[in-house]
Amino acid sequence: MRAVAVIPGKENSAHLREVPDPAPNEREARVRVVEAGIDGTDREINAGLYGEAPEGESFLILGYEALGRVEAVGAEVGEVSPGDWVVPTVRRPDGCPNCRLGEVDMCLWGKYKERGIKQRHGFFSDDFVERPEYLIKIPEALRSVAVLLEPLSVAEKAIRQAFRIQRRMYWAPVKALVLGGGPIGLLSMLLCRLRDLETYVYDRDVPGSATARRVEETGAAFLSAQEQSVPDLARRVGRFDLIIESTGNSRVAFDAVCLVGNNGVLSLLGIYGGDRTLEVTAECIGLKLVLGNHLIFGSVNAHWTDFEAGLNDIDRVEQRWPGWLAKLITRRLPFDRFQEGMTKEKDDIKTLLEINPAV
Amino acid sequence: MRAVAVIPGKENSAHLREVPDPAPNEREARVRVVEAGIDGTDREINAGLYGEAPEGESFLILGYEALGRVEAVGAEVGEVSPGDWVVPTVRRPDGCPNCRLGEVDMCLWGKYKERGIKQRHGFFSDDFVERPEYLIKIPEALRSVAVLLEPLSVAEKAIRQAFRIQRRMYWAPVKALVLGGGPIGLLSMLLCRLRDLETYVYDRDVPGSATARRVEETGAAFLSAQEQSVPDLARRVGRFDLIIESTGNSRVAFDAVCLVGNNGVLSLLGIYGGDRTLEVTAECIGLKLVLGNHLIFGSVNAHWTDFEAGLNDIDRVEQRWPGWLAKLITRRLPFDRFQEGMTKEKDDIKTLLEINPAV
Repeated sequence: MRAVAVIPGKENSAHLREVPDPAPNEREARVRVVEAGIDGTDREINAGLYGEAPEGESFLILGYEALGRVEAVGAEVGEVSPGDWVVPTVRRPDGCPNCRLGEVDMCLWGKYKERGIKQRHGFFSDDFVERPEYLIKIPEALRSVAVLLEPLSVAEKAIRQAFRIQRRMYWAPVKALVLGGGPIGLLSMLLCRLRDLETYVYDRDVPGSATARRVEETGAAFLSAQEQSVPDLARRVGRFDLIIESTGNSRVAFDAVCLVGNNGVLSLLGIYGGDRTLEVTAECIGLKLVLGNHLIFGSVNAHWTDFEAGLNDIDRVEQRWPGWLAKLITRRLPFDRFQEGMTKEKDDIKTLLEINPAV
Repeated sequence: MRAVAVIPGKENSAHLREVPDPAPNEREARVRVVEAGIDGTDREINAGLYGEAPEGESFLILGYEALGRVEAVGAEVGEVSPGDWVVPTVRRPDGCPNCRLGEVDMCLWGKYKERGIKQRHGFFSDDFVERPEYLIKIPEALRSVAVLLEPLSVAEKAIRQAFRIQRRMYWAPVKALVLGGGPIGLLSMLLCRLRDLETYVYDRDVPGSATARRVEETGAAFLSAQEQSVPDLARRVGRFDLIIESTGNSRVAFDAVCLVGNNGVLSLLGIYGGDRTLEVTAECIGLKLVLGNHLIFGSVNAHWTDFEAGLNDIDRVEQRWPGWLAKLITRRLPFDRFQEGMTKEKDDIKTLLEINPAV
């Protein structure tokens, strides 16, 4: 079968290759990939920043956002059937206490594997095999936007964790800020708007851009980095009860600490890598962070219940803002033109690879 | 009556003055102060760094750690009686939703008042009046160390909040680090040791010092800043599940972020004021904070239940390490020698003012 793979650590190594068809065992299903989303992490793996091949192999098949259709199931699989639409989850457990409890997104030992990222092949291929507990069944009616479920699950986890953490007190957030208007940012915004929070999205794009229009269509406000810095926001808009940082820019992340209001929460979703050095003022973590009971947490990946919550929320979004989710899909590329997807174009929000669109 | 007061904002303004005896109304008790602890915040207020006088007054009576004895109660007070030993709490509510729920330590509006700190006189005086809901009754048997209850309550809150926050997942911390060996640090250590955590205390003092001995007497390990930097600790001791930062040094606080282990929690208790600028590496909040689900929170003040929990823990500590708590009280000064307490001496852990020791 066809697959798009990289040589981990090697810059711009993404290539189409022929690999053996995967054969499911009696506890696995074989899934035909219909379409798959390209995300920043795919591009960073292709830039050689991270990514690990499965043990004993030299290449890693990319891709962790996919929609597919079950083709065949092993003799012991009753949970899914041929013809079912499915979205796979990404992480696989390592046997730590949290993983054993099904909380692989809270893995303690850090030896988890991730499809398309870390020691397991991903979904940029004609087919993949997987155990049914890692497949989320998709109702036919939501099939057209279900490829967005994986990035949505990341936003669902961050916000679920924020609320779960804050059960430590009475917490009724009013104002939310999302930093970054990429797919994770826009989907986080959506979850804030579904809760009717007064929501702001800060992005480097300009007012009137596609991103700005998507923001405003949900009743959120668009704040352009061209017009104000992150520290400016405190003066112009005030402080926030909930902040989701999705830019992955460490300067933005540090500056966001100063925007948290009393009892507020900042969730960091970006990967702030490298040994870049920043100047920060001590005041940033100063009087306010402690006296205001502020909280900052890193959130990664998602629990399978976040995929289920995401499905439910897709349904609610389709009713409240019909057609909005589909507009996030700004580019569709045939599988053999995957290279074009490895760079982000202007006004591009989510690029899909159409791997087997006719299924 | 006698009182030690400052002129807020004026450096070294602490002075003994004569003030009118406070008269309790029908819902208040009058308490004779037996002894009171001097803490870093008292010294910082005396340095002019903060502190606010009650409305319409030019001075602020200092002091927020006190043990007293009820002298008289108003007609409607049934909760305490003359002769009861009591420790007062510090914060007074502002009517925000959290304050209305009794969670003044989680005040949302930030307009709370604090006795001895912010718009309410403190306890460095012969007497004070207070409503009974802000008085914690002390059993006679614990009277000798009960003046430590207020700083202990701050440690209780931080650790209670850490555990409460982490109910969001399976969390069984093994290794704890306390940064700073002052009273709050040592009391935090004690709570970690009561939970039998493998506990480390990092302090600028030298091995063999009084602080180091107090640490080692509880089975915790003393790590001297003379021998290693904070970043060294990751290499020498590994990462930690729970870190309590009590130094108030912003450099230490930032460096501590890099010591948090997977699913770990860093609680900041210091006041990291000023406009000091720090260089930090982005990596500090980088891969690990997000990929490891790390969490950082500021914790301030304490709920009245933290005082009650503290009383219970004083009892447990007295049984497990008899006499240990009393050794934290390293200096006792007659009231009129309060000036000596305004500077910290070598090997000084907790200095008390003996205001009415004969009561």
